[in-house]
Amino acid sequence: MPVEIERKFLVRGDGWRADVEEETRILQGYLADGPRATVRARIKGDLAYLTIKGATSGISRSEYEYRIPVEDAEAMLREMAISSVIEKVRYHVRVGSHLWDLDVFAGENQGLVMAEIELDAEDADFQRPDWAGEEVSDDPRYFNAALAKHPYSGW
Amino acid sequence: MPVEIERKFLVRGDGWRADVEEETRILQGYLADGPRATVRARIKGDLAYLTIKGATSGISRSEYEYRIPVEDAEAMLREMAISSVIEKVRYHVRVGSHLWDLDVFAGENQGLVMAEIELDAEDADFQRPDWAGEEVSDDPRYFNAALAKHPYSGW
Repeated sequence: MPVEIERKFLVRGDGWRADVEEETRILQGYLADGPRATVRARIKGDLAYLTIKGATSGISRSEYEYRIPVEDAEAMLREMAISSVIEKVRYHVRVGSHLWDLDVFAGENQGLVMAEIELDAEDADFQRPDWAGEEVSDDPRYFNAALAKHPYSGW
Repeated sequence: MPVEIERKFLVRGDGWRADVEEETRILQGYLADGPRATVRARIKGDLAYLTIKGATSGISRSEYEYRIPVEDAEAMLREMAISSVIEKVRYHVRVGSHLWDLDVFAGENQGLVMAEIELDAEDADFQRPDWAGEEVSDDPRYFNAALAKHPYSGW
């Protein structure tokens, strides 16, 4: 099975803006979080999705995702979200041969800017730009689910 | 606002079979039942749906329904149902000017056969056929949600 390593860093300053290749607005929140399934609505740019994830069983977890109208997703997030809605703009930033995801949060996580890089192995080499500050890969406060329940503005 | 009255009866015998106009297999179950939304998967004949219903607020309740592949609905009902999956065949049966819905349950509600008629008013006239036995309109054990939690076979 392919291993996917994500390393996450807090971002310092605006030095990354010159290398942005793409930006996408993301809005997502959970509508239900039951014993056997979680349900998430997500708006990504002009597209919206409803995602049903099964409970983890061993290493596999079923996931079903459907395109839905953006206005449905907006209404559901407004009416049915059970935790904070995560709002962010995601920027794709090229650094050497790697594409970083840079998330500038808004709403209740305003002030948080986080960069993420996907690597093939834990010890894979990569160029670490000046704007990549403190590493927070293992800090559970920065997980998406945690930011929805305990947003950055309340820390 | 239009009022919709549903009256429900237990069914005696097979006398209704001669008047069946249509039959549809229905399989449905809840995947999540949270404080702000419930999520249901439903297979009706060759079609399947995912339905997200908001919590009741006053008289209105948001509802979003999406067509999904039948095989997705089958897998979700198998892997994620939080209560019994309701299995039934629904027959449309013509009696005079009214169309009745006759549900022959299977699975954990095997043995239950229930007929339902929709009327415009509580005192609306209708022809009650011989096979319509005891009225159970107000018996909460026969509600869909109750049959999922406490199926007929366990009474």
